[in-house]
Amino acid sequence: MIKPVFYQKSTFGNGGRTGLLNTRRGEITTPTFMQDGTRGVVKSLTAEQVKSTGVDIVLANTYHLHLQPGEKVIQKLGGLHEFGKWRGPILTDSGGFQVFSLSKLRKITEEGVTFKHPVTGEMRLITPESSMQIQIALGSDMIVAFDHLTGLDEKSIKDTQEAFDRTHRWLERCIAEFKKLTKDMKSSERPLLFGVVQGGLDLDLRKKSLELVQASDVGGIAIGGLSVGEPQAEMFKVLEALAPLYDPKRPHFLLGVGAPADLRFAYEHGIDMADCVLPTRNARHGSVWGANDQQINLTNAQYAEDPSPIMEGCDCYTCANGYSKGFLRHQFKVSEPLAGSLCSIHNLRYLQRICESYRVDKQG
Amino acid sequence: MIKPVFYQKSTFGNGGRTGLLNTRRGEITTPTFMQDGTRGVVKSLTAEQVKSTGVDIVLANTYHLHLQPGEKVIQKLGGLHEFGKWRGPILTDSGGFQVFSLSKLRKITEEGVTFKHPVTGEMRLITPESSMQIQIALGSDMIVAFDHLTGLDEKSIKDTQEAFDRTHRWLERCIAEFKKLTKDMKSSERPLLFGVVQGGLDLDLRKKSLELVQASDVGGIAIGGLSVGEPQAEMFKVLEALAPLYDPKRPHFLLGVGAPADLRFAYEHGIDMADCVLPTRNARHGSVWGANDQQINLTNAQYAEDPSPIMEGCDCYTCANGYSKGFLRHQFKVSEPLAGSLCSIHNLRYLQRICESYRVDKQG
Repeated sequence: MIKPVFYQKSTFGNGGRTGLLNTRRGEITTPTFMQDGTRGVVKSLTAEQVKSTGVDIVLANTYHLHLQPGEKVIQKLGGLHEFGKWRGPILTDSGGFQVFSLSKLRKITEEGVTFKHPVTGEMRLITPESSMQIQIALGSDMIVAFDHLTGLDEKSIKDTQEAFDRTHRWLERCIAEFKKLTKDMKSSERPLLFGVVQGGLDLDLRKKSLELVQASDVGGIAIGGLSVGEPQAEMFKVLEALAPLYDPKRPHFLLGVGAPADLRFAYEHGIDMADCVLPTRNARHGSVWGANDQQINLTNAQYAEDPSPIMEGCDCYTCANGYSKGFLRHQFKVSEPLAGSLCSIHNLRYLQRICESYRVDKQG
Repeated sequence: MIKPVFYQKSTFGNGGRTGLLNTRRGEITTPTFMQDGTRGVVKSLTAEQVKSTGVDIVLANTYHLHLQPGEKVIQKLGGLHEFGKWRGPILTDSGGFQVFSLSKLRKITEEGVTFKHPVTGEMRLITPESSMQIQIALGSDMIVAFDHLTGLDEKSIKDTQEAFDRTHRWLERCIAEFKKLTKDMKSSERPLLFGVVQGGLDLDLRKKSLELVQASDVGGIAIGGLSVGEPQAEMFKVLEALAPLYDPKRPHFLLGVGAPADLRFAYEHGIDMADCVLPTRNARHGSVWGANDQQINLTNAQYAEDPSPIMEGCDCYTCANGYSKGFLRHQFKVSEPLAGSLCSIHNLRYLQRICESYRVDKQG
C-alpha cells in the first residue's frame, strides 16, 4: 500500500474536512479548487496571474495534450511544468472524459477506446496502459486511472453495470502499469494515482465502486461521471451517499465540478479537491460571479456606463484595481482578449475564497 | 506661446538627442516608443504587463473610442486613465488617420470629414473642432491636431498641395478650439497639443509645413503621413531633410512607425517619440523580433520542439521566465491567447531596449 499522503486537520458539516495533501511538488491545503489548463496552461493567464488568485494546483487535459503537441514533444520541452511555467503541482486527467464526450467514431472494447483524431483524422487507441504512460511522460504529479464513463448517452442500467465492471477491470490494469512505470522512483518522486468511482446515479453501484477503489492500491479517490447533465439533486444524492464511506487517509477528488453551490455542497460532504473549466470558460464569454453567486453577464447593455467593479469588496486583481463593468463590457463588445483574462482572474478568485472560507472557519 | 515642455539633455547622430518631456502626468525620458492601445488598452495586456516592458506612454485611438463606446461613456466611467487603468501619460491621435484609412464613403470638405459608422451605418462628421472636443473629453494628456492625410490613395502633387493647405487651415481651427476648451485650465493641467507636419514625399512642402507648424502656438511637433506604404528610403529622405530644422524646445513625434530599423533612423534624426500598432499586432500573429532585428515566425514547424526562448539574454518577462519557442508555437497552433500576450510583452520590451540604448549611451 502507498504511504498516506493526506493529513486530516479538522472536520465539519456532513463529512467535510480541512487537511493537508502532500504532493511531490509541495503541500497543499484543502479543500482546494484546481483550475483546468486544458492546453497545458490556464487559458489567457500567465502562471503568476493564476497564482495571484490563490490557485495551488492546476489540471491539464491528457486527451488534448496527447493529440497536440503530443507527450513526446512536451517531454523534449522539459515536461509539463517547464512547458507552461506552472511550478506548483499539476494533475492530469485520464483522457477518458474527453474520449467519451468529444471524440467521434469511438469504439469501446475491452482493450480500450478507439477514436478519430479531430485534426489529422487518423484512428487512435487509448488504453488503460497508454493513459498511464502518457500521464507519466507528461510529468504530471497526480494522475487519474482510465475509466469507462457513462451518463453522457448510455442511460440503461445494463450499460451502467457494464461500464462499472469495465472501469474496475481497467483500474487493475492501470495500477499494474503505474507500478511498472514508477518502480525505479523513490516514494518522494512518485506521482499520486487516483482510482475513479463510477456507477452513474445508482447509489448501490456507487457505494460498491467506492469500496472497490478504496480496496485498491491507489493513493487517491476520484469521483467521476457526475455533473454531466444530470439534475443537481441527483448529484447531491450521490455525494451524500458516499460522504460517510470515504477513507479519511486519502484525498477525495470530484471531477468536473466548478459551480459555487455545487462546490460548497461537495466540500461539506467530504470532497477535498475539484476541478472545472467553468470559471475561465464563463469568464471569456463575459459571465462572472457577483455577490451571493449571482451570475452577471457583462455583455448586457445595462452595464455600458456602470463604473462599479464586478463585485464590491472583492480582493481579486480585477476588482481591487477598480476595472469597471462598463470598461469590461466595452472590451467584450470589441473582442478584446484582456476582458476574458480579467474576468477569469475574478472567477478564479471567487472560487478560491469559497475554499478559503472552509479552511479559515473550520481550522479555528 | 505655450511654455516649453521639453528639456534637451544631449545630442548625437544627425540631430538625435535625449531629453525630458514634461506631461501633466509626469516626466518622460526620450527617445521613447509609445505602444498603441487602440481600444483604450494595449491589446491583451494589463497595465502592469505594459509597464513591465518599460513603456512610459500609451497611445489611444480617437476614431475607435469615439465610435465605441463613445467619449461620453468614457467620461462617465472617469476618463481614459480610469477606464483602462493606465496611470501614466496617454496620447490620443486625431482620428484623422483612421478616418482616411479605415472608413468607407468618406467625403472631405472644408468643414471636415464625413464617413459611415462601421457598426451602425449612420453618417458621422469629424471636424478639427470635434476632434479637439473628443480628445479633451477622453481625458488625454497629449492631443494631436486633425489633419488631411495624403499618401494612402492620393498621389498627385495637386492633391498633396491641397491636403497640405487644408492641414494648415485646419491647424488654426484646432488651435482656436483647443484654446477655447482649455482656457480655464492651469498650465499644469493643460494637455499638450501637437501640430502635424504633412506634405507627402515632397521635401520642399515638408520643410514649409514644418515651418508653419513651428510658427504656430502648439506645444509639440508631429510628423504625419509617413510609413503609409512608401519605400523606406523615401521616408528616410524626409526625416533627414527635417532633422536640422526642428525647434529644439518642443518634442518631435513621428506617427505610426514601429519597425526597429525605422525607429533607430528616426531617433538618430531628431525624433523623440514614435508610436505603432506593429509590435503587438505582429506578436498576436506569432511574429517576434530576435537578435539583430531578425523576424521570427513562431508558428513555423521548425520551432515545434525548440526549447530555447525567443531571444537568448532578453530581459522581457517571457524570455526571462524561459517560455520556449516550442511552447509558444503550440499555443499559437491551438489559438490560445496567452501566446499573443507573451509575445506582445517580448516585442514591446525589444523596442524599449532600443530607446534605452540611446538614453544610456548618449547621456554618459
